[in-house]
Amino acid sequence: MTGVDFERARTPEAKRARQQAILAAAARLATADGVREVTASAVADEVGMHKSAMLRYFETREDIFLQLAADAWGEWSAAVRAELEALAARAVTSVTSVTSATSANAATAGRREQDQAAQDTAAVLAHSLVSRPLFCDLLAHTPLNLERNVSLERVKAFKTRALAGVAEVGAALCTVTPLRLDQARSVVATATSMAGAMWQMAAPSTNLRAFYESEPELAHAVVDVEPALTDIISALITGYAARSTWPAPN
Amino acid sequence: MTGVDFERARTPEAKRARQQAILAAAARLATADGVREVTASAVADEVGMHKSAMLRYFETREDIFLQLAADAWGEWSAAVRAELEALAARAVTSVTSVTSATSANAATAGRREQDQAAQDTAAVLAHSLVSRPLFCDLLAHTPLNLERNVSLERVKAFKTRALAGVAEVGAALCTVTPLRLDQARSVVATATSMAGAMWQMAAPSTNLRAFYESEPELAHAVVDVEPALTDIISALITGYAARSTWPAPN
Repeated sequence: MTGVDFERARTPEAKRARQQAILAAAARLATADGVREVTASAVADEVGMHKSAMLRYFETREDIFLQLAADAWGEWSAAVRAELEALAARAVTSVTSVTSATSANAATAGRREQDQAAQDTAAVLAHSLVSRPLFCDLLAHTPLNLERNVSLERVKAFKTRALAGVAEVGAALCTVTPLRLDQARSVVATATSMAGAMWQMAAPSTNLRAFYESEPELAHAVVDVEPALTDIISALITGYAARSTWPAPN
Repeated sequence: MTGVDFERARTPEAKRARQQAILAAAARLATADGVREVTASAVADEVGMHKSAMLRYFETREDIFLQLAADAWGEWSAAVRAELEALAARAVTSVTSVTSATSANAATAGRREQDQAAQDTAAVLAHSLVSRPLFCDLLAHTPLNLERNVSLERVKAFKTRALAGVAEVGAALCTVTPLRLDQARSVVATATSMAGAMWQMAAPSTNLRAFYESEPELAHAVVDVEPALTDIISALITGYAARSTWPAPN
């Protein structure tokens, strides 16, 4: 704890600074040890406050992590939309070159291009999730543990921001794939849920992962999350696209 | 607690009977209240044993639920394979009728048949999961909470049975779809993980679900698990099939 005055905050700005300091401390601990290991007392120690003082700013331990999860949804949504925009810009260039192919090859080229677009989009989504391990950890804990020990008002505030993230990233997906918005939202919901589940099952440098790697019979329990997640998202986009307005490949 | 003698078990049969009684009590409580609410003490009360006596049969609360989860994987695997076999038998009949279509309509008919097969297979998988709410609940808790407070030996025993379930159901999927075994396993892993995640997010008759339903802004948080899960699995099968040996629809 350096440079922050933890007298009781008197102004809205001071209150916000306290909240941010508490959230930053919780994020540091959860990044190091995993969300499930971090208690409210540990966060209070890390931020240099008494637990009772800290709980003037957040209802419970779960409230702190639910707020972190809401912030993580917002940060992820902005970042992945920027990457999908960049992908859309590159795709325009690529389409220009494909239209110069001979008409005999056009169907095959079109199909290959669609598969590649699904793969590229999936890779962007998977990488954006896997490179945010704290978000992945929070994604798994949110429905199971973090929405349960807080007021419904806090659940609503969190859920509103998470749903906004799903809708925003879904809309961005529609600019780089032929998916309908409901299909795109389903891709986002599946990608984020699977990122949470797979991270829990396969997070590197955990005791469980080391154990799975040491037992030949458990080889299938060892999952490299990023390629596995890319593969699932890519197949899902291809499958939805086959049912939507993407021109049929024949 | 009726008719079971809870003197210390002296024979392997008596020991197994105790274990089964403990598992059945834990399953009853978890079905009623959810896995996360059930403590070891509550299970001991339900089965009519002292907690210390009960913990001669299981290492921890988590060990009890990990054993329930292993049993649930085995039961689900057997049941869903039987349903996929029945589906395969019906599909043979349907293919016979399709081959009598005119050749002009054959491509369209073939494609429609493929979509229908993906949809039927997805519906079998989704229904088999959603109709087992305790299995869905355990699926979400296993990687997050239940594999953490038990010995590695117990984790290995559980994981071996879960992986066998994925492999068995994956192989059965290969008989009703053109998927490769690795793709089929990915479908099973995704279906089971998503069933766990969606059940937590959307389980009916919970306080959270009632709250989501009462708030118009949270309409997208209300998910009907079975159709939503069927949709995801179906798109995933279609997407994998497009990349595999399923004849291309042109």
